[in-house]
Amino acid sequence: MANPRPFIHVNCAMSADGKLAGDDRTQVRISSDEDKSRVKGLRKHYDSILVGVGTVIADDPHLTLKDRDYDTNPIRIVLDPHGRTPDNAQVLNDRAPTVMVTLEGCTRTWDCDGIIRAGKVDIDLDKVMDELVRMGVENILVEGGGKTIASFFRAHLVDRYTVFVGGLVIGGCNAPTPCDGDGWVEPEGIKLQLDDCQMLGNGALLSFKPLYE
Amino acid sequence: MANPRPFIHVNCAMSADGKLAGDDRTQVRISSDEDKSRVKGLRKHYDSILVGVGTVIADDPHLTLKDRDYDTNPIRIVLDPHGRTPDNAQVLNDRAPTVMVTLEGCTRTWDCDGIIRAGKVDIDLDKVMDELVRMGVENILVEGGGKTIASFFRAHLVDRYTVFVGGLVIGGCNAPTPCDGDGWVEPEGIKLQLDDCQMLGNGALLSFKPLYE
Repeated sequence: MANPRPFIHVNCAMSADGKLAGDDRTQVRISSDEDKSRVKGLRKHYDSILVGVGTVIADDPHLTLKDRDYDTNPIRIVLDPHGRTPDNAQVLNDRAPTVMVTLEGCTRTWDCDGIIRAGKVDIDLDKVMDELVRMGVENILVEGGGKTIASFFRAHLVDRYTVFVGGLVIGGCNAPTPCDGDGWVEPEGIKLQLDDCQMLGNGALLSFKPLYE
Repeated sequence: MANPRPFIHVNCAMSADGKLAGDDRTQVRISSDEDKSRVKGLRKHYDSILVGVGTVIADDPHLTLKDRDYDTNPIRIVLDPHGRTPDNAQVLNDRAPTVMVTLEGCTRTWDCDGIIRAGKVDIDLDKVMDELVRMGVENILVEGGGKTIASFFRAHLVDRYTVFVGGLVIGGCNAPTPCDGDGWVEPEGIKLQLDDCQMLGNGALLSFKPLYE
């Protein structure tokens, strides 16, 4: 039987002390050139790229590929519970389709290709996945930030977790990490199986498969 | 010329999302058996093992080797600015010498082998290193926690940083990380050179050399 929901791959880059950015969320170069090339290649294999609104506001990424246009770029998906994404965010430009995801109670609209309303207090990811399947999405590359990644782990929706550990120490107890939010992702954590580890320029790429119990 | 201060090696184990423990500081098994064996071997090569008081209070480690006695175990060093280490802490047992380090204003004493008072607001690590050299310490294995490791990076005293990244996701924005404390360890972070990366059971051991500018 085919996977009833999209395959979900979480990919991120953390410093050698486990941070995604500085404690003020300032972006900092963690990936090596080799890792940046890998991520570009990875994006080509996915139907869609998903980020949280925190990443949109902090980094304003466009999430498109250089050689692609509206019809060939992956769909961009933004988890934005309370509708905080500004109209001029790059993720809403016309270089790729964009689907916004909010809570049921949010009435904010955008000039985009779809709005999914799911969940009353937290976004209901299972419902979102159902809607995305209906739209034809077969796989999703989740690129952050830490709260978004945590919500996917909590829902046991991560099929593959790759993390590049770069040659940099950032520091700071308030700096964002790959799996953030409140408290344990679940009691005693979620076990992962390490399938591969390789040097990629000045850092190491680790590839894990979650083992949900 | 010989190194005028001890060689300092920071070693720790973090989860695949960059945490040393749970957000309540609950210890969790991150190291693989292979990594535990490596750490035991590593300890044999060092004159001394250093931790911060937070680690003593959270984990109550003894920091001794199984086959060694008082005369052959590494010296245990505890950074304890305000003298919070309880008299019955295992790190003060009679299986190895112990040196306590506090701020100059602290008057707390312990039944131990030496007390170094250094620094008015923060512990003055350069002064501590001078005292340790006088005691004959040539190399130190720093095992945590995050604030202690951060203070060594800030002082540019780390010569080698090894981190085991284990197959586990812990989660939580308040969980301790390998380099904690307030804000950036220094503007834009401290660059590290990745010298080696290898799988060690269900995790990867990364070995870095800091490149101070």
